[in-house]
Amino acid sequence: MIDTHTNALQTESAGEVGLVEYRDFVCKEPFRFENGESIPGFQLRYETYGQLNADHSNAILICHALSGDHHCAGTHSPEDRKPGWWNHMVGPHKPIDTTRFYVVSSNCLGGCVGSTGPTSINPVTGRRYNLDFPILSIADFVFAQRRLADYLEIPSWHAVIGGSMGGMQALQWALSFPDFVERIIALASTARHSSQAIAFNEVGRYAIMQDPEWKDGNYELGEGPNMGLAVARMMAHITYLSDKGLEVKFGRSRRQTDSSKNQFDVEFEVESYLRHQGQSFISRFDANTYLHFTKSNDRFDLYGDHEALEDAFAEMKARALVVGFTSDWLYTPEQNRNLAHAMLLAGKEATYAEIDMDLGHDSFLVHAPELFRLLSAFLSN
Amino acid sequence: MIDTHTNALQTESAGEVGLVEYRDFVCKEPFRFENGESIPGFQLRYETYGQLNADHSNAILICHALSGDHHCAGTHSPEDRKPGWWNHMVGPHKPIDTTRFYVVSSNCLGGCVGSTGPTSINPVTGRRYNLDFPILSIADFVFAQRRLADYLEIPSWHAVIGGSMGGMQALQWALSFPDFVERIIALASTARHSSQAIAFNEVGRYAIMQDPEWKDGNYELGEGPNMGLAVARMMAHITYLSDKGLEVKFGRSRRQTDSSKNQFDVEFEVESYLRHQGQSFISRFDANTYLHFTKSNDRFDLYGDHEALEDAFAEMKARALVVGFTSDWLYTPEQNRNLAHAMLLAGKEATYAEIDMDLGHDSFLVHAPELFRLLSAFLSN
Repeated sequence: MIDTHTNALQTESAGEVGLVEYRDFVCKEPFRFENGESIPGFQLRYETYGQLNADHSNAILICHALSGDHHCAGTHSPEDRKPGWWNHMVGPHKPIDTTRFYVVSSNCLGGCVGSTGPTSINPVTGRRYNLDFPILSIADFVFAQRRLADYLEIPSWHAVIGGSMGGMQALQWALSFPDFVERIIALASTARHSSQAIAFNEVGRYAIMQDPEWKDGNYELGEGPNMGLAVARMMAHITYLSDKGLEVKFGRSRRQTDSSKNQFDVEFEVESYLRHQGQSFISRFDANTYLHFTKSNDRFDLYGDHEALEDAFAEMKARALVVGFTSDWLYTPEQNRNLAHAMLLAGKEATYAEIDMDLGHDSFLVHAPELFRLLSAFLSN
Repeated sequence: MIDTHTNALQTESAGEVGLVEYRDFVCKEPFRFENGESIPGFQLRYETYGQLNADHSNAILICHALSGDHHCAGTHSPEDRKPGWWNHMVGPHKPIDTTRFYVVSSNCLGGCVGSTGPTSINPVTGRRYNLDFPILSIADFVFAQRRLADYLEIPSWHAVIGGSMGGMQALQWALSFPDFVERIIALASTARHSSQAIAFNEVGRYAIMQDPEWKDGNYELGEGPNMGLAVARMMAHITYLSDKGLEVKFGRSRRQTDSSKNQFDVEFEVESYLRHQGQSFISRFDANTYLHFTKSNDRFDLYGDHEALEDAFAEMKARALVVGFTSDWLYTPEQNRNLAHAMLLAGKEATYAEIDMDLGHDSFLVHAPELFRLLSAFLSN
């Protein structure tokens, strides 16, 4: 059995997480989804950074956003062009300090980067799940991660942290397992999707499902609705940024025109950027997972049947830090403020911080000293 | 020759424009586009309401938005389910009062509802223009309309009025033909597209051009990239509304689920609404025209090479009313305010009004008493 509490490749000498390797947690027990359906078992891919302490009290879980994955810090090989997506946040003496904390970053159930999802083989049929994969909820992500925590012999999280869909998971952790979670940090998150957020997701799903290559979800590995998925990603990517952020970054700058192309081909820099986003996404993401993840986000609803949002937090025990970003128009500052406000009305230890940044919803992914200090202070407190 | 100054079918008795018929203006002179290319002639479809007075001084031009057309008031037959798109604004004793004004509503050059555009036969080749149709600018729309004005023996416009792309045309009229335009009313308009607006248009164009049925623009009449065009329309439609407007209209209301469909099919009301928008659009709009119109909007830029926007208005003689809508995040209130502000700095008679409405960019299309009073007063002044 591999030692799950250290990471053999880890080299912290340079103030960086350094080289890391992912691991696969295989759960051979059946997993029952929130919708009542079951699968006979599942796998979750994850990475860890830092060391679990003697009393197993220093573990932090990081939950990824819709297009993210478990690889949030360090590199897999010296040749990697980029480190993990939150490398500036996670590492020795960084805000999520790996000299103090044992950090677990888990891939989501249903994902397409090593965890069991629509692309996995259904052991019952011997074929890929595709659309037979049960509809996923945010709670399903969390219950699968709970199995991982048990496997890692973690009795409780010092903190669960995530942005966007990761923030939903942090919130859900505090509600599903109140005694397991000491702190949550939900960044650029929401109690539920607005009608507009659902609308954007629907257009993305529609583009995928109308692509003839989707084939009712039964495309072959390596094939699939690339056009639809690229369109979905390009559109979604606009919602992750902001009007002002795009204006500052691209404005109306033009590219060299390519006279071999038609007159509607790339003219403005922002067009080229979006096409690049679309193309790089199809090389790393599965369309059926995209359908599942967007749907789980659309259905996430902490209001549920409660009369008021505060009622949703009645059982929560974690202390909460909710962070909104001024230019986030997908999960607005107001939606984030409302989360903290509802927790306070429910008598919980909660606080809200708003960071003034122009980068829209994706602000939480960006190097930002103020955000660093906030997280560092909250985790030490 | 038909009498172009009255409309035989017009019946104003009920306070409505009543039955109208469209006409086709055929210009047999060559038309040179702003980009230098030419076509041997063109046709513009238009409608008129009201009577041209003896000294031809009471004519108003209405310019339509991207997905609009010339049919802005009345009905074509008693069986029509709906009147024209601005029927509440145009008619006897309405804000654009057809008992006082002779109202001309012109289809745009390049359009797909009776005017010469990509779907028309190129007389030189005997085949449809498709992508050979010259790249269009807002100025091209205006220069074609100028030919129509000459044909109708209109020496000047009492006012040129339009919303969105129609507002761009109103602005362009005042700049291209300063002596021809006494007043302009630009609603929910902009001096130029933001990077974000270009980005949304690019995703729509990309969806169309990646649809295998687009065939480099050479699809057959009645066929075409319906999937891509529907996706483009669905996404664009979100940008025409507002977060709050969608929340009020749809919120998270769900539809009866259809168990025969897959789990990603329509679940929320807003999804159903968007799909309906997409489907109804493909039945009435041409994909190549959509490419052209969005591109003309993206390229429209009153700043141009000027040092400041005010310099663009140096030659303008028209009095201007610019109207922004608080919830318009496509062509923001700020962008509209900036237009009027620049005109004022240029020493022009200009004013700005902001209407507090939740319906986003499309607010200008909606029945709104305050807007009615504004337009009525400005036109009488």
